[in-house]
Amino acid sequence: MSVMYGWRAMLLLAGLLPAHAAHAAGTGQHLYRYGGDRVMACATCHGRHGEGGAGPRLAGLSASYIASQLHAFRNGHRPDSKMQAIATRLDTTRIQAVVRYISQLPRRSLPPLSSDAASSDVRRLLALGDRQRGIPACIHCHGADLRGGGPEIPPLAGQDAGYLARQLRLFRKGARSGWPATLMVHVSRGLKDREIAQLADTISAWTGKVVKADVKDSPSRWHPAPAGPDHFTPPDEAAVPPDHPLVAMIRQGERIFVDTPHRARTFTGDALSCANCHLDRGRLATAAPMWAAAPHFPMYRGKNRRVNTLQMRIQGCFVYSENGLPPPLNSRVMNALTAYIDWLATGMPMGEHPKAAGFPKIERPKAPTDRRHGRQVYMARCAMCHGAHGQGRSVRGKRLFPPLWGPDSFNWGAGMHKLKKAASFIRHNMPYGAGGLLSNRDAWDVAAFVDSHPRPQDPRFTGDVATTAKRFHKHPRDDFYGRKINGHVLGAPGTLKAWVRARGR
Amino acid sequence: MSVMYGWRAMLLLAGLLPAHAAHAAGTGQHLYRYGGDRVMACATCHGRHGEGGAGPRLAGLSASYIASQLHAFRNGHRPDSKMQAIATRLDTTRIQAVVRYISQLPRRSLPPLSSDAASSDVRRLLALGDRQRGIPACIHCHGADLRGGGPEIPPLAGQDAGYLARQLRLFRKGARSGWPATLMVHVSRGLKDREIAQLADTISAWTGKVVKADVKDSPSRWHPAPAGPDHFTPPDEAAVPPDHPLVAMIRQGERIFVDTPHRARTFTGDALSCANCHLDRGRLATAAPMWAAAPHFPMYRGKNRRVNTLQMRIQGCFVYSENGLPPPLNSRVMNALTAYIDWLATGMPMGEHPKAAGFPKIERPKAPTDRRHGRQVYMARCAMCHGAHGQGRSVRGKRLFPPLWGPDSFNWGAGMHKLKKAASFIRHNMPYGAGGLLSNRDAWDVAAFVDSHPRPQDPRFTGDVATTAKRFHKHPRDDFYGRKINGHVLGAPGTLKAWVRARGR
Repeated sequence: MSVMYGWRAMLLLAGLLPAHAAHAAGTGQHLYRYGGDRVMACATCHGRHGEGGAGPRLAGLSASYIASQLHAFRNGHRPDSKMQAIATRLDTTRIQAVVRYISQLPRRSLPPLSSDAASSDVRRLLALGDRQRGIPACIHCHGADLRGGGPEIPPLAGQDAGYLARQLRLFRKGARSGWPATLMVHVSRGLKDREIAQLADTISAWTGKVVKADVKDSPSRWHPAPAGPDHFTPPDEAAVPPDHPLVAMIRQGERIFVDTPHRARTFTGDALSCANCHLDRGRLATAAPMWAAAPHFPMYRGKNRRVNTLQMRIQGCFVYSENGLPPPLNSRVMNALTAYIDWLATGMPMGEHPKAAGFPKIERPKAPTDRRHGRQVYMARCAMCHGAHGQGRSVRGKRLFPPLWGPDSFNWGAGMHKLKKAASFIRHNMPYGAGGLLSNRDAWDVAAFVDSHPRPQDPRFTGDVATTAKRFHKHPRDDFYGRKINGHVLGAPGTLKAWVRARGR
Repeated sequence: MSVMYGWRAMLLLAGLLPAHAAHAAGTGQHLYRYGGDRVMACATCHGRHGEGGAGPRLAGLSASYIASQLHAFRNGHRPDSKMQAIATRLDTTRIQAVVRYISQLPRRSLPPLSSDAASSDVRRLLALGDRQRGIPACIHCHGADLRGGGPEIPPLAGQDAGYLARQLRLFRKGARSGWPATLMVHVSRGLKDREIAQLADTISAWTGKVVKADVKDSPSRWHPAPAGPDHFTPPDEAAVPPDHPLVAMIRQGERIFVDTPHRARTFTGDALSCANCHLDRGRLATAAPMWAAAPHFPMYRGKNRRVNTLQMRIQGCFVYSENGLPPPLNSRVMNALTAYIDWLATGMPMGEHPKAAGFPKIERPKAPTDRRHGRQVYMARCAMCHGAHGQGRSVRGKRLFPPLWGPDSFNWGAGMHKLKKAASFIRHNMPYGAGGLLSNRDAWDVAAFVDSHPRPQDPRFTGDVATTAKRFHKHPRDDFYGRKINGHVLGAPGTLKAWVRARGR
């Protein structure tokens, strides 16, 4: 319940609800620069232009982020005696005013950042994380340039190094709590002291260029020895010697895999990338990893009643999850994806069907799913990244978080429209970097909430929702296709359009 | 030298050279039935109609086979004191006469054979052999119905069981020698006493139906554990449970693999099957086994300067070795072959490039290859199956031995037109069942002889032999394309037609 309180309070504090005071900016500026009424000036520590000093840089932070942090200080979720005292002494009006002022401080007035140099280890953590220790890539949420991933995910580039290191240590020991600090508590658990210092130094000097992992690493890892199909280590991102035609193909496949809408535009009809479901670029064991899929093709699939080669299976993903067209079997997109996917399975025994194939088994709760409860959990835990309307989020022209429903998401033929699959995906992998945070029931209810929204038509549509539902959506317990939700039949022509008209795309 | 003597003598004895005596048949019949001049009647042991009795059945044997056996008795290559005495006492004229008589004894006058019952072990030996012990399938040479594989390869079905068992034991201990007995000496080495008895009983009762291996065997062998990529055991032919859609696809692929011209007619332009080069249905370690090829695709190939998927590689085989058309990537032929080939690699680590991939390394002799010597070896050791004109052989409508040159063989773009590849194939695998019999020099010279004959045009033909040779046949030491042999430029339009006109197809 405190979470829900926190969420609403945050919106309130952020002044995103009604705008009361026309002169708030003026008041905010005064408070920021000169303080008053038992509150010291923000500028004392954070600098006259929010550029930081004794305290962290504030310029560039969003109103909602500043407000939520003030709230966190006030209720003890963030440990800092000075800021806790200040936040407690401010009333709502003054908080609104100063938040609004700070959020408008121009980032461009700050001194230029210094350098994009980084050791290959740090670059790796930033760009790829470390799956062995459960550390996701920093850029996954904070943006490829580390300049922030939206209102609640602050920019990191250029932030004070001491501040960054201090916060990472606080996260790591769980001293910051509440939402979304919990995410960072999960994410930072595996970091070593040395890494925290290096990350902080590198990030604080980062100019905001796109972070790329150094791939000129040891080629000895090209053929990892698997410890058996269920303890498999896919080849490392850095394991590919860069000067071979096959490697160029594998790299191209990887680029398509992580940025499908741009790299395979012809065949893509939504805003999803392969890597949105197959996390960690197809490596994460709990997210239908490619290394577990590749070895067991060709295989028979009931869905199309045929023996499918890997390529035919990939075509299926494009038709349904990508809501697009099947890339021809001799296309470069197809060959590059095949090369990448087969490479990820290097060392896996051919014909093997490892336990990790697909999504992990998940227990079905005895009670029916509760979409209302799902909505509550979604708003508290998922909307931060995927948006209140499931629209996902792009930042500075680059898509950071995928849309979950609506016209830009997977269609009614994709596996993810089925509750069981979606619930497993959510339970084991969401929120990103903190899989397992949601309970089994939460995961099922969020899945039900997400999958009971309009999305593009099933490509197998017969012209009639009832017939299509009968032929292709036989398990109503797992599937909302053809059901009437909020006055509209899901899958009926017009339902998606009506939703777009009501919400905007 | 004795071999060449044997060869010429055989033709002479067989009366295949000039036919002297018009009344030879009459004399032969008399000799067969009543004997004379210190020679007992053949009919005494072999039966009045050649149906056998104390001695083996003779009806159905070819003239050349009977003649060569009489010759073998005479020079001690076949141990049988009674037959040795008889053969020594016969002069050439009488041998010609009796051989001619026996070879005309109608097989149909014999009593019907009894049964096609066979234990699954015997059926397996007949139809598949046992690659662990180097035993090829009986049907490979003696025909799918065991009714013989041409003049020099006798029918087995219906032969006396005691005789068969005795001969197998003689072969096994090397008591029969000379050519082609040497082949059987090789082939029978691994047979156990019990198996010889069972084989003899089964074969003698065989009615001449096509032998098929029993495939309803233990499904536990479906996933063989490889002992590392270089000691790999491909799945057993009998390992497939027959009631699964994927299995149907694998089986279909296997059928295409072993009978490509009929099962993939649309895409085949010659008389070769995949299994003609990839022996033992793609399993034999020394003959470019499929289980060693499948794991390392996709791979870069210099031949087409592209990263090739397995499917693209298969297309290459069809274009060159099959002298046909590339099966479309979504065709059933392609999917079935892919399913079969991938299945053969079950358990092989993906991405692996085992030593067995392709053909074994072979040392190049210091002296240039000698096509004349190659011709001698070919005629002595290869022509028996592949024909004096490289035309191969079909028996009772079924192709038993592939053509090696001429219009029905692989074209000038196939790997096998290169000496190094052909020499390795021959050295390690030929004569079938007795790989290693030829010396390294013999293998290279036979390769040079075979590959210096006309064959279908290189599909990459530019319209001009010299240019094509320059672009695609850069290693003249390994390649006869564009060279003038026997007055014709190989690869030149018209050379193959002239050859066909001269030899007949």
